[in-house]
Amino acid sequence: MSEYVTAMSETVQIDPMANYFREKYEIDTNHDPKDRWQVFDRTTGQEVPVSDWQFDAETGLVTVQNAKKFHTYTVNFMVYQIWDSTSMYNHISNNWTCEHVVSTEPYHAEAREHLMGFFDNWLEEHPHTDVVRLTTLAYHFVLDSDKHGVDKYRDWVGYMDTVTVEALDDFEKEYGYRLTSEDFVDQGFYNATHRVPTQQYLDWMQFIHRFVIEFGKELVDKVHAAGKKAAMFQGDHWVGTEPYSDEFSKMGIDINVGAAEDGVALRRLADSPNDEIKEIRLYPYFFPDVFCEGGDPLSESVSNWVKIRRAMLRKPIDRIGYGGYLSLAAKFPEFVTQVESLCDEFRTIKEYSQKTRPFTGPVVVGVLNAWGKWRSWLNNFGCDQKFFVKRPDVVAVAGSNLLECLSGLPVEVRFLSLSEIEQNGVPADINVLINDGEDGTAWSGGHHWGNETVVSAIREWVYNGGGFAGNIGPTAYPHQGRYFQLADVMGVEKEVGCSVMTAAKKFDIPEKHFITDDAFDAFDFGTENSYVFCDSENTEVLKTKSDGLHIHLAANEFGSGRGVYMAGLPYSIDNSRLLHRVLFWAAGKEDQLKQWFSSNLNTDCAAYPETGKFAVVNNVDASQETVISTPEGEQITVNLKPYEMKWFSMKDA
Amino acid sequence: MSEYVTAMSETVQIDPMANYFREKYEIDTNHDPKDRWQVFDRTTGQEVPVSDWQFDAETGLVTVQNAKKFHTYTVNFMVYQIWDSTSMYNHISNNWTCEHVVSTEPYHAEAREHLMGFFDNWLEEHPHTDVVRLTTLAYHFVLDSDKHGVDKYRDWVGYMDTVTVEALDDFEKEYGYRLTSEDFVDQGFYNATHRVPTQQYLDWMQFIHRFVIEFGKELVDKVHAAGKKAAMFQGDHWVGTEPYSDEFSKMGIDINVGAAEDGVALRRLADSPNDEIKEIRLYPYFFPDVFCEGGDPLSESVSNWVKIRRAMLRKPIDRIGYGGYLSLAAKFPEFVTQVESLCDEFRTIKEYSQKTRPFTGPVVVGVLNAWGKWRSWLNNFGCDQKFFVKRPDVVAVAGSNLLECLSGLPVEVRFLSLSEIEQNGVPADINVLINDGEDGTAWSGGHHWGNETVVSAIREWVYNGGGFAGNIGPTAYPHQGRYFQLADVMGVEKEVGCSVMTAAKKFDIPEKHFITDDAFDAFDFGTENSYVFCDSENTEVLKTKSDGLHIHLAANEFGSGRGVYMAGLPYSIDNSRLLHRVLFWAAGKEDQLKQWFSSNLNTDCAAYPETGKFAVVNNVDASQETVISTPEGEQITVNLKPYEMKWFSMKDA
Repeated sequence: MSEYVTAMSETVQIDPMANYFREKYEIDTNHDPKDRWQVFDRTTGQEVPVSDWQFDAETGLVTVQNAKKFHTYTVNFMVYQIWDSTSMYNHISNNWTCEHVVSTEPYHAEAREHLMGFFDNWLEEHPHTDVVRLTTLAYHFVLDSDKHGVDKYRDWVGYMDTVTVEALDDFEKEYGYRLTSEDFVDQGFYNATHRVPTQQYLDWMQFIHRFVIEFGKELVDKVHAAGKKAAMFQGDHWVGTEPYSDEFSKMGIDINVGAAEDGVALRRLADSPNDEIKEIRLYPYFFPDVFCEGGDPLSESVSNWVKIRRAMLRKPIDRIGYGGYLSLAAKFPEFVTQVESLCDEFRTIKEYSQKTRPFTGPVVVGVLNAWGKWRSWLNNFGCDQKFFVKRPDVVAVAGSNLLECLSGLPVEVRFLSLSEIEQNGVPADINVLINDGEDGTAWSGGHHWGNETVVSAIREWVYNGGGFAGNIGPTAYPHQGRYFQLADVMGVEKEVGCSVMTAAKKFDIPEKHFITDDAFDAFDFGTENSYVFCDSENTEVLKTKSDGLHIHLAANEFGSGRGVYMAGLPYSIDNSRLLHRVLFWAAGKEDQLKQWFSSNLNTDCAAYPETGKFAVVNNVDASQETVISTPEGEQITVNLKPYEMKWFSMKDA
Repeated sequence: MSEYVTAMSETVQIDPMANYFREKYEIDTNHDPKDRWQVFDRTTGQEVPVSDWQFDAETGLVTVQNAKKFHTYTVNFMVYQIWDSTSMYNHISNNWTCEHVVSTEPYHAEAREHLMGFFDNWLEEHPHTDVVRLTTLAYHFVLDSDKHGVDKYRDWVGYMDTVTVEALDDFEKEYGYRLTSEDFVDQGFYNATHRVPTQQYLDWMQFIHRFVIEFGKELVDKVHAAGKKAAMFQGDHWVGTEPYSDEFSKMGIDINVGAAEDGVALRRLADSPNDEIKEIRLYPYFFPDVFCEGGDPLSESVSNWVKIRRAMLRKPIDRIGYGGYLSLAAKFPEFVTQVESLCDEFRTIKEYSQKTRPFTGPVVVGVLNAWGKWRSWLNNFGCDQKFFVKRPDVVAVAGSNLLECLSGLPVEVRFLSLSEIEQNGVPADINVLINDGEDGTAWSGGHHWGNETVVSAIREWVYNGGGFAGNIGPTAYPHQGRYFQLADVMGVEKEVGCSVMTAAKKFDIPEKHFITDDAFDAFDFGTENSYVFCDSENTEVLKTKSDGLHIHLAANEFGSGRGVYMAGLPYSIDNSRLLHRVLFWAAGKEDQLKQWFSSNLNTDCAAYPETGKFAVVNNVDASQETVISTPEGEQITVNLKPYEMKWFSMKDA
């Protein structure tokens, strides 16, 4: 979409490419713009009739006639991407000077034929290669660049780079309806992952996904025919593979590699429902942005590893690895020593767990959002993310990060979509539903909370004994006097300006509650003003801002079930334990918390009944003592050095 | 509206009176509930057919049949108020023990006849009374009480207490359409003043207002016929009088009294377009809530008076007064001394101003919201207000309070509704439009910002030289990819979760700018995380959170006009000056700022060209020196004791 342009008269000229990087994009003049482009009056939201605008390929300008004065206009247009995003990133960030790479579009028969021929040839010329890593599959994730070449828009799992006229035509034949440019442009939000997805976008994802799997399978088949193994990398050109889909395994990948900076990324790879070999690529990459004078790769490595190890103990994987220039890493010997030790730890995890199922408490968690399983363990970025300066190659979460807390807990986790609830109700095996995300986003669920079937199904399920744990803007959707549609389940409501002069219910904070009854250092919900108030006299408000009014944590009995509200949950050791307790309380399983449970919050315990081993890990940079409770009620005292991991045999315990 | 009740089966029983104070309300069983009540499925938003519910007057319960399981239901019902809100307040807060007062409903012919007879009699029996104060006019403001008798809902200018079946029937005859209970209940928000008003509610207000004026005129005519003067009090039973309406003067009131705790309240009375005598009632009232052991009436009086004096110097009134028990005040001699001195100051203001027009700069400000002039100078409560503990009888504003800053500035101020802009464009004499309020409220404007005529009219007006000053959530309305619909005018946009991964524009903060070029102590926008980002490379971002990212203050040239964004403006001396500069910059009148301008922010200067006098006041509790600039460019140094006001003759200057 072009920038917004204001009509100062009845004729307005728009340069669609204004503020796009001209080294990266070139307007598609091979297809008739009138066939696929759209011009919108963004003041009214109405499309400008095709007869009222012209594109001049010479000047590159769109001229709109019969414009309304002082309305704003935009053009949805199509471009060729003439510089691959990863190639461009490496030129700019890592000083590469080689020729600009142009991604090919495998959807085109000619391109595909060329690629396959090239690949056949390559396979033949590399008889001694055992493993072929398909780093470049079909499509790059979205990374749009502004006129200076700086990131303008980014979506690590977005499908914007998959659009071609040919695929759009095929889609129309298959689905029986035509997708418009606006179905993709989405008012300039581009169906970003935080947007509640439309059916059109979901259809397009399915369509492209099937193509990518079929295309990938052809490549993998060739790899296998050549007697080699095939790996893929969930990094740059992986969009459309969707490892959580039912079709993914058809591709026949042997090794699935994912970059992992935290526990969420580890779980994203580890939990995907396929039995290929799973390998994580650890950060930092050995690139000059971090491995430079004054750089501190050691701290980043330690802090990442603590998170990853926590998660890995709940869901082991097969391999770890690194990427980049070894020569750079060699200049940081402390980093190399730490990597050596984490490799040793990884080997013991493999040896003692044997990739068997670790002990989990009797709590099955369903993380509920507008996406469901295809977006399992995807970091859930909120508004704070926009005001957070970070390295462009690393995913770091600003503010609330409940998923990171969850990634290391001894519970089963699945991801569910609100549409699944609408169609089939809450799955029978779920104990606690988590709804975590900012108001109106795909993570909270947006308009799905206005759906009577969804709301009443969950309300009934909780009433009959289910647990519901909301974080930030759970069930938020302004409708019929309610903002949190399950305010009755959580016992709290949010003020957004509609009911300022309506009094909140009064409350007292109970002296003791299962959820907060632990050796917490401090409570940090990542916010002070939650604007959440008490909605029922039965709500147990557990934590508030220091004013005693803005609610940060509340628990509520609803029929035989329970609801919990949290104002936000930044990742921390304390908040991981808090979530642990929230989930067991919401599930009504308080009495079963202390099984392979570590009394010291700074430490975790993971047990493997099938191998008879258990590990105790220290997540902090100081020696710790902890008492482990076994399911049989034994108490085992363990002392750990900073960041240490110790293994024990259950029979010795 | 009843509380929300969840249907656990196909039959659900609702007690409409649950959580209402039974000493205050009694269900109306004289009219057929089926005729006026409504039952709603609040999960779907659909009304339950009248045939599907019954009210049992014996039990007081509504039974709904064919309910959908786990949907929530509410009943809109009608009650008689059997205890007047002010009477109840005095019983509870001031220990009154007299009989409960029941308000009469003057709309009923019989009640009106009785009242008028009573009044005729009273007038006859009080021949020596000069002035009759109609404290009790037709309707009380809304003050709903929960089952404990505690405030449940409050709207100082709301019309909820004006509803009767008789008036509803007459409305239907006159307007040709029938108002439903839901038109008043408004999903439980009761058309609160912060709600964007519906046409139905505006029609009802007009209808009731005409009745109140006609009713009030009959009373006033009787007062005048008895040779007395008539006063009214904008306090308890004043709803429907609407002093800013064109009809108000028809009532013939001689003296209009308003309680004033701040400059906004002073201006609300002083600016109303009628030439009756205007009197303010100062706080604190001499009531035992403040005049008690440990009470501090002095501080409250001083802090109120500084605000009121600031505003009064811009718009003088005729009288000041107090209310309550003199015996209580007498116990606080320091308070009495301070009152003596403020009375003296008031007398000098009257004497030297002679109620003539003070000098104002060449800036006419239009405060733009969904209400317009009927809600002129009404405090604009945001979400923070709900989380603010205050005395129930005093209006105190939590958080942003731009109007208080504005109330003491030397500019002309008018209040405009967005509907007026839609119909007639921006009035020709306006220099700067202010849009101040939280997103989605009547103060910001809500859906009016989705109106193409409104948006393009203001955009064009600014482009041609107008000024636009936005505060908090100006022009906020999610529509067509924009959140701030005039993001182009202000140069900034707000992140609400839709565009998290879209990059903000970069900016540098200019070293010097007219708006911030003063002796400010510190900047306080009442918020840290504004979630407002830069939307144009031309925007001059002037202040941000310490992270350098969340924007607090920005200025933008738009065509020949200018836009300003402020993240919030709590009342303070510094923020009053900041607004002063914002308005002159937005109007493009920087060169005319320093006319009767006081260099020291803690002091103000007000000049009266017609009397040839000017005042310099010290607003703080420490001696101050300041330099006054006259329009002729003279510089006059003035020294002031704490809180002192000094008067000068222009010819001496």
